[in-house]
Amino acid sequence: MPPIAVATPGDALRTFRMTLQYDGTDFLGWQTQSEGGTIQDVIEVCLRRILGHPVRVHGAGRTDRGVHARGQVASFSTANPIAPQRLFQGLNALLPPEVAAIAWAEAPAGFHARHSARSREYAYQIWRPPVCSPFSRRFVYHLHRPLARGPMEEAAAALVGDHDFASFCAAESREGGTRVRVASSGWEIDGPLWVYRVRAERFLHHMVRTIVGTLIEVGTGRREPGSIAGTIAAVDRRAAGPNAPASGLFLERVEY
Amino acid sequence: MPPIAVATPGDALRTFRMTLQYDGTDFLGWQTQSEGGTIQDVIEVCLRRILGHPVRVHGAGRTDRGVHARGQVASFSTANPIAPQRLFQGLNALLPPEVAAIAWAEAPAGFHARHSARSREYAYQIWRPPVCSPFSRRFVYHLHRPLARGPMEEAAAALVGDHDFASFCAAESREGGTRVRVASSGWEIDGPLWVYRVRAERFLHHMVRTIVGTLIEVGTGRREPGSIAGTIAAVDRRAAGPNAPASGLFLERVEY
Repeated sequence: MPPIAVATPGDALRTFRMTLQYDGTDFLGWQTQSEGGTIQDVIEVCLRRILGHPVRVHGAGRTDRGVHARGQVASFSTANPIAPQRLFQGLNALLPPEVAAIAWAEAPAGFHARHSARSREYAYQIWRPPVCSPFSRRFVYHLHRPLARGPMEEAAAALVGDHDFASFCAAESREGGTRVRVASSGWEIDGPLWVYRVRAERFLHHMVRTIVGTLIEVGTGRREPGSIAGTIAAVDRRAAGPNAPASGLFLERVEY
Repeated sequence: MPPIAVATPGDALRTFRMTLQYDGTDFLGWQTQSEGGTIQDVIEVCLRRILGHPVRVHGAGRTDRGVHARGQVASFSTANPIAPQRLFQGLNALLPPEVAAIAWAEAPAGFHARHSARSREYAYQIWRPPVCSPFSRRFVYHLHRPLARGPMEEAAAALVGDHDFASFCAAESREGGTRVRVASSGWEIDGPLWVYRVRAERFLHHMVRTIVGTLIEVGTGRREPGSIAGTIAAVDRRAAGPNAPASGLFLERVEY
């Protein structure tokens, strides 16, 4: 397929911002890999087909393998003068059904989805009934065992604030330090679905899944709700609980 | 794997009723086929492994390839004295994640999920926004074009009553005649999702999908809302619209 439109010398470079949703179940995560199979790879391949030149797409959050997004934000630049509506209709037509660009706009020059972001919000969904729902199964962690709601709420609240979250960070990746200001952290308990929501300027690698794994241990009585301050103070990944599975995690929104 | 428990001579035959949910996307429909790959086949294979004898499962509705269920009811009998809780926990452990038995009970002797049913309810989901949701894509028909809600509601209401629905029945299958009493038929329009709900004692082959395809033609202005009585009176499949895709259709519940 030839590109829909091509740039000619003198065309201005434009930067676009788009909001993405994806079902991450069958992808290797956001970030490009040499073997492909990531969300970023799929989007870059589609944009290259439309724009006729290689495109580098920057995502606000580098979601892991199997993690989903309801409001990932990504940016890219092109000198191709194509109309935005045509560009994004073309993109959605080429993308697999697991990935969708649900909103888009031209952004100011210099806008960068990751560097310009002021905060991110993640949600983690736990399916509580005895049997997992065939309709929700791709988007939840199924955990039926009894969980004590009050202690989990108390422990979630103890994470709010400016802390060194090294205990909640995969040991191999501490780029930019491990100090994070958590703006909000709490549970929304609604029928069969228990949802943990957390908002911060930035997140460390595996941070939300380690937090949820630790909060679940509080819910099962394996940890005291008052133990979270000590877990943070340990500054040691081994002090926190296991990572909860990727399937329950969503990048919910990004603020600028 | 040996069966969990086995029957001995003199054990009473018990009949069980179970409520099933399934994501029908990757199945060849409910009803058993020689090549397998149907919901009924999968359940029968799992029950045979647990009970140690061939099992025939009867479903209240024979959903087509790609059609889902939120409340299919199925029955089967066994002389195996296994405790129901153990039987159904075993079944859910063996079933693929697309299929779940969400409720079960011992039923009176002679109970037959299809023959004993008094009514069935189906729902059909249409996703209206410009871009399809990666999270709903398996469970909707994505249709963004303008649809006139009032005429579609008027046409849906015109289907209620005791009619010959031959115009809404796949021509090759008219077992039991084509007369059907439709108890209710209407739209629930809620944000991005438009849902058509219809309840009747029984349904003809492709009946709901043909109704929805016809109501969509009313919504796009291709048919008049007042034309439904004539479409019914034609008693000719060619008088109705095309079948809407299977992906949007759910067997919602069965009443006894």
